[in-house]
Amino acid sequence: SRSIDLAVIPGDGIGQEVVAEGLKVLSAVLPEDVKLETKEYDFGAKRYHATGETLTDADLDALKQHDVILLGAIGDPSVPSGVLERGFLLKLRFAFDHHVNLRPSKLLPGVATPLAGEPEIDFVVVREGTEGPYTGNGGTIRKGTEHEVATEVSVNTAFGVERVVRDAFARAQARPRKKLTLVHKNNVLTFAGHLWTNIFNKVSADFPEVATDYIHVDAATIYLVTDPGRFDVIVTDNLFGDIITDLAAAVSGGIGVAASGNINPSGEFPSMFEPVHGSAPDIAGQGKADPTATVLSVALLLRHLGYEAEAARVEEAVTADLTERQGKPARSTSEIGDALAVRVAG
Amino acid sequence: SRSIDLAVIPGDGIGQEVVAEGLKVLSAVLPEDVKLETKEYDFGAKRYHATGETLTDADLDALKQHDVILLGAIGDPSVPSGVLERGFLLKLRFAFDHHVNLRPSKLLPGVATPLAGEPEIDFVVVREGTEGPYTGNGGTIRKGTEHEVATEVSVNTAFGVERVVRDAFARAQARPRKKLTLVHKNNVLTFAGHLWTNIFNKVSADFPEVATDYIHVDAATIYLVTDPGRFDVIVTDNLFGDIITDLAAAVSGGIGVAASGNINPSGEFPSMFEPVHGSAPDIAGQGKADPTATVLSVALLLRHLGYEAEAARVEEAVTADLTERQGKPARSTSEIGDALAVRVAG
Ligand SMILES: CC(C)[C@H](C(=O)O)[C@@H](O)C(=O)O
Ligand SMILES: CC(C)[C@H](C(=O)O)[C@@H](O)C(=O)O
Repeated sequence: SRSIDLAVIPGDGIGQEVVAEGLKVLSAVLPEDVKLETKEYDFGAKRYHATGETLTDADLDALKQHDVILLGAIGDPSVPSGVLERGFLLKLRFAFDHHVNLRPSKLLPGVATPLAGEPEIDFVVVREGTEGPYTGNGGTIRKGTEHEVATEVSVNTAFGVERVVRDAFARAQARPRKKLTLVHKNNVLTFAGHLWTNIFNKVSADFPEVATDYIHVDAATIYLVTDPGRFDVIVTDNLFGDIITDLAAAVSGGIGVAASGNINPSGEFPSMFEPVHGSAPDIAGQGKADPTATVLSVALLLRHLGYEAEAARVEEAVTADLTERQGKPARSTSEIGDALAVRVAG
Repeated sequence: SRSIDLAVIPGDGIGQEVVAEGLKVLSAVLPEDVKLETKEYDFGAKRYHATGETLTDADLDALKQHDVILLGAIGDPSVPSGVLERGFLLKLRFAFDHHVNLRPSKLLPGVATPLAGEPEIDFVVVREGTEGPYTGNGGTIRKGTEHEVATEVSVNTAFGVERVVRDAFARAQARPRKKLTLVHKNNVLTFAGHLWTNIFNKVSADFPEVATDYIHVDAATIYLVTDPGRFDVIVTDNLFGDIITDLAAAVSGGIGVAASGNINPSGEFPSMFEPVHGSAPDIAGQGKADPTATVLSVALLLRHLGYEAEAARVEEAVTADLTERQGKPARSTSEIGDALAVRVAG
């Protein structure tokens, strides 16, 4: 009999609320013969304040035992900026070699977008997750003086770039439009730019059916608001991916519906799925958060584990719910979760 | 009697066409007693192909003699990516210490925006121009092998950050709303992030009337499409500034109307003014380019030289022209330039 051993990290703020709904939908959609085991972990601001810890080696060992991880959100204004981001979120991505950061953007019917007209938006960003300016390389000298110098080093390796570029080509190949766009800034960041461009061109030869395209990151932001329909799959560096996926979320219905996966394709470590949004402390505990992004992250989680039919059912339920939602009074976090659970079960 | 000694660099593609119109409007708006002297330089793709040169020491010496520089656009597909960008554009910004890269965004009445509704957009981005990931620091080892490693080093100094932050505070202070937003990614790029944040907070004490705000660069792209009205003045790093000013241009009428200045506030070297758009080789030579961005760059040039009334007249002419333009058949590059020249003279 089949089973899923899931690590659950609700985290801070609205993380708690949205993860509860994600689990509700997950339980409802799974076939009866699949045994779902969950274990909750208390990472985040509370644990940091109580113990000073963000993510210990023992924590990593414990998480490693699970098949997969569902995360709500980590971050609180009471913790200095960077402590939980670097000490938990990035530490986990690097420790578990989550090099494929998958962020789909699809403007679903009836969903509001800040863009005029009715743009067609349906693309996926494959953001590199373990290199670039996110490595923590760099440093500071003469800190706090008028002679301070602070550096940040973007590290890019052929190994790291090729594996994520191959992953993106394979994803493009599997989609109807079969188009892959490399986003970088290779005219200015020429060292990293050449590496990315050369590898992109080399791997392209192995995917003759995939049409390719290159766009500078600054121009990419223009296209994301003037012609988002031109994108099918985008592959990009860690920092550029961070920036353009927030913009992509904004134009395709907002971060209330933006899902993501931090994927280790080899399966050596568990992959992690989470909404793109943060912990939103301003609305936490009020039942106002939209759990849709978490529910869509559950769909990505299901697909990652091979439950394709169940993933599709979750996505169809979300599409139906969003369509019916228009013009109706706002529902609470758990009302939305309940409605989605009913849909996927039925 | 007064005079302006202007270096003119038409450059590549539509650069030639739009600069001609910029000069037309400049001549028309200047009072009779101001003597305008211009000298044209042939930098760009043609010169590179003929001589292999992009910008020599002798060129820099020659340019240095002028009061100010007007640039069209540099770049052509016949030149490998990066050669003219690094060899001319960035070389000049660094050689002339253009550390204030000024990029205003104002959605003028009647101008089309990709955003729904009628957003109010009127902000200025002060982008640092001589540090960050643009320094060319970094390198490649084992090039072309499966073990290649390429690095890009973002260099940030207290000196470099403080002078641009002060400039931005002064600009915010001079505007009615008096609000300055720092855009960075200080939760991930913690070395540079701390430097920027600490200096921003320190300088803030000298400008008690200016309200301050901090936003991560990824979130800033969301606000630029969902709530651009929240911004008054933004100060940011070289790369973040590159990215968000293209997005800002897109939402506030497109790069056809986006102007910029590369400013050396001390006056030790001439400042340079240019449209944000590139050389657009696909439409070059057809009279299709909109010279408005160049004309608005001329307004920034005039203001920089102290011709405030003339700068305002150019901006008013552009506003009037854009308003009347709506719904009428498209005019050629020179028709738009002619119309603007008539307006500013009248
Ligand atoms: C919180 C932060 C570390 C993170 C990132 O920059 O990757 C977030 O912005 C994201 O996109 O997941
Ligand atoms: C062409 C390139 C070097 C330049 C930059 O990145 O600064 C351009 O994008 C700009 O914004 O002026």
